[in-house]
Amino acid sequence: MNTTTIPKQEFYDRIAKFQANIKAAGLDACLVHATESDMANVRYLSEYWPTFETSAVFVPAEGEAVLLVGPESEIYASHRSVFRNIEKMIEYRESAEPECPGMIFATYKDIVAKYAPKGKIKKLGIVGWAITPLPVVTSLKEQFPDIELVKADNTFLPLRFIKSGNELDCMRKAYAISELAIEAIINEMKPGMTELQIVGIAQREIYKNGGEYEGHSLYVFCGPETNNAISRPTHNKIVKNEVIQLNIGARVSGYSSSVGLPISIGPLPERKRKLIDFGLEAHFKTIELMKAGRPAGAVVRDYEAWVKSRGFEKYMLYGPCHAIGMMEVEQPWMESTSDYELKENMTFQVDTFFYDHDFGLRWENGVVIKKDGVEKLSSKFMKIVEI
Amino acid sequence: MNTTTIPKQEFYDRIAKFQANIKAAGLDACLVHATESDMANVRYLSEYWPTFETSAVFVPAEGEAVLLVGPESEIYASHRSVFRNIEKMIEYRESAEPECPGMIFATYKDIVAKYAPKGKIKKLGIVGWAITPLPVVTSLKEQFPDIELVKADNTFLPLRFIKSGNELDCMRKAYAISELAIEAIINEMKPGMTELQIVGIAQREIYKNGGEYEGHSLYVFCGPETNNAISRPTHNKIVKNEVIQLNIGARVSGYSSSVGLPISIGPLPERKRKLIDFGLEAHFKTIELMKAGRPAGAVVRDYEAWVKSRGFEKYMLYGPCHAIGMMEVEQPWMESTSDYELKENMTFQVDTFFYDHDFGLRWENGVVIKKDGVEKLSSKFMKIVEI
Repeated sequence: MNTTTIPKQEFYDRIAKFQANIKAAGLDACLVHATESDMANVRYLSEYWPTFETSAVFVPAEGEAVLLVGPESEIYASHRSVFRNIEKMIEYRESAEPECPGMIFATYKDIVAKYAPKGKIKKLGIVGWAITPLPVVTSLKEQFPDIELVKADNTFLPLRFIKSGNELDCMRKAYAISELAIEAIINEMKPGMTELQIVGIAQREIYKNGGEYEGHSLYVFCGPETNNAISRPTHNKIVKNEVIQLNIGARVSGYSSSVGLPISIGPLPERKRKLIDFGLEAHFKTIELMKAGRPAGAVVRDYEAWVKSRGFEKYMLYGPCHAIGMMEVEQPWMESTSDYELKENMTFQVDTFFYDHDFGLRWENGVVIKKDGVEKLSSKFMKIVEI
Repeated sequence: MNTTTIPKQEFYDRIAKFQANIKAAGLDACLVHATESDMANVRYLSEYWPTFETSAVFVPAEGEAVLLVGPESEIYASHRSVFRNIEKMIEYRESAEPECPGMIFATYKDIVAKYAPKGKIKKLGIVGWAITPLPVVTSLKEQFPDIELVKADNTFLPLRFIKSGNELDCMRKAYAISELAIEAIINEMKPGMTELQIVGIAQREIYKNGGEYEGHSLYVFCGPETNNAISRPTHNKIVKNEVIQLNIGARVSGYSSSVGLPISIGPLPERKRKLIDFGLEAHFKTIELMKAGRPAGAVVRDYEAWVKSRGFEKYMLYGPCHAIGMMEVEQPWMESTSDYELKENMTFQVDTFFYDHDFGLRWENGVVIKKDGVEKLSSKFMKIVEI
């Protein structure tokens, strides 16, 4: 089986680019945090995916970076990451906080002495600010009372915006697997099965076809729950003539995907079908508005004006796109306030969600920004499916 | 399908007990944090499981508690949680940090004014200290410069230690599903399949039999990776006459499980078989040492002394048990330093891990502490399996 992967050198190139940004920002180093469900930043630098425990990468402005792992992950990290420098720290233990009697851990002081330029640090950038937890911050402030902690996501996240050829290949494969999973669901779904049993079909297909995990927590909702922008599947049964929302995503070598569509077994009532039809039209509209060079905010403003002109704004919750890559939702979002330009090989999830009081629908497909428009990462299910 | 669940009243009883503890600790309120992969504390109080976004519950010493969710989760939380008080806050948005132009959010000042005793707060307990992130802490300190933040996990986590009848039923079902998944793996596994394809078999069975999700990230490792205490499965192929480590866990109504055993296709070399045999003996030894009234630390010290007496201590990484419930690993751990007593209806994962330079093995089964010993939550695969 072809397991599309990122070569080692690409990780080292990422670290070098990141170090240039750290230096340019006048920081001594950055500390990049990750959790099991929010692993992207650390995996992007190291290929390591913390599980049960958390993890960080300490990247000095100059010199060698080091992967920081919890008490139980040293061998795992040495087998799986591209790092030779790995240190074990109590701050990255599981949230159940084992004491680990007898084990020996590095401190942040040790890390700084060994890896920071001249063994000193005054200004430390925090990457993954939104997920960096109290034990990390508390230890840093105890060990370096005068340290300045700076939110430094912008020294790092832009490196992830434009995808390399290898990254795009991982994503193409992930989307292809998601489409296979949806095909299996359409073939096998019957009234009376539960939403969760449908998730099981998707999971089976993801792993059978070379995925390494789900790309996000999978959505299968039938009926009223389809108006939840975010939700989780339940033991509710699939019924006929009702909206069934699927959002299925496989993960390949860290790269996520998601294909979303509302389907039904038998025809839908006119009112629901009408909003679904409009949603699909809106989905194509967004895609039509995207190409390299366009300001992201303008895409959203044009889209929102178009939805209003058609009289559907009351069914709209938020903007039509967000970036996708190692996370199914990653920066940059495309919002009316966005002030960046679309660039070639940025990857976006076109995410068209409309909802009423008793149902909702979401069309989702991935695209790569190109000079004259987009490359679709998935397109097989941009259509009305009635089983 | 029987979907074992926790009744609403049990959630309200939990909140009342928690409030008594908050009062006794001299705190004005507690803020309980959760993430997608570390959802237990919030789910225990509300039944709500944050996904993509994060979440918290604000519990005042007196009065009504409130569920705090991110920009996209309001309808989901209103459908799924047992709470009527739900507030939308920017601090609980996704880590990709959308700006959400036009949306209106509550602030911590609003929450305190509306829900805290007398609308004021001086001393706030933080529950889930290990996972509470910077945006929460930064906003709290900006809005209440004089606030005292206190690690307050001990006002809450002990409520989760002793399981109710309903909780035990959820766990019994979760373990039963895990055993069905292992049975399917044993029936279907063939040399040449990848570790991840085996995970797919387990996922299929979990959802088919009434699980709502995996209880933890599933382990299927073949060969050298079996010496990773923590790891993730890969595209490596299953081969004959090699240790294949399975740790399979289903989740039912929030409650986790895990059944672990080393198996093989065809016989193993003598050296590996010997450590596996000893591991199983050690696994039974731990179970023999457990009953209500015993000091947890003594169980571990007796166990470790026994392992030493048999000459196997160099293969040991850590203690033989941790609690299991809404998380596969939760407090309290059972370590040589543990100073609590085992009590009836505490639930532990007996977790027997030994490793050498080129392989490892882990026997895992769940138990409920009883007066005269334990009730086994799983026992079908406490045996050597050679396919």
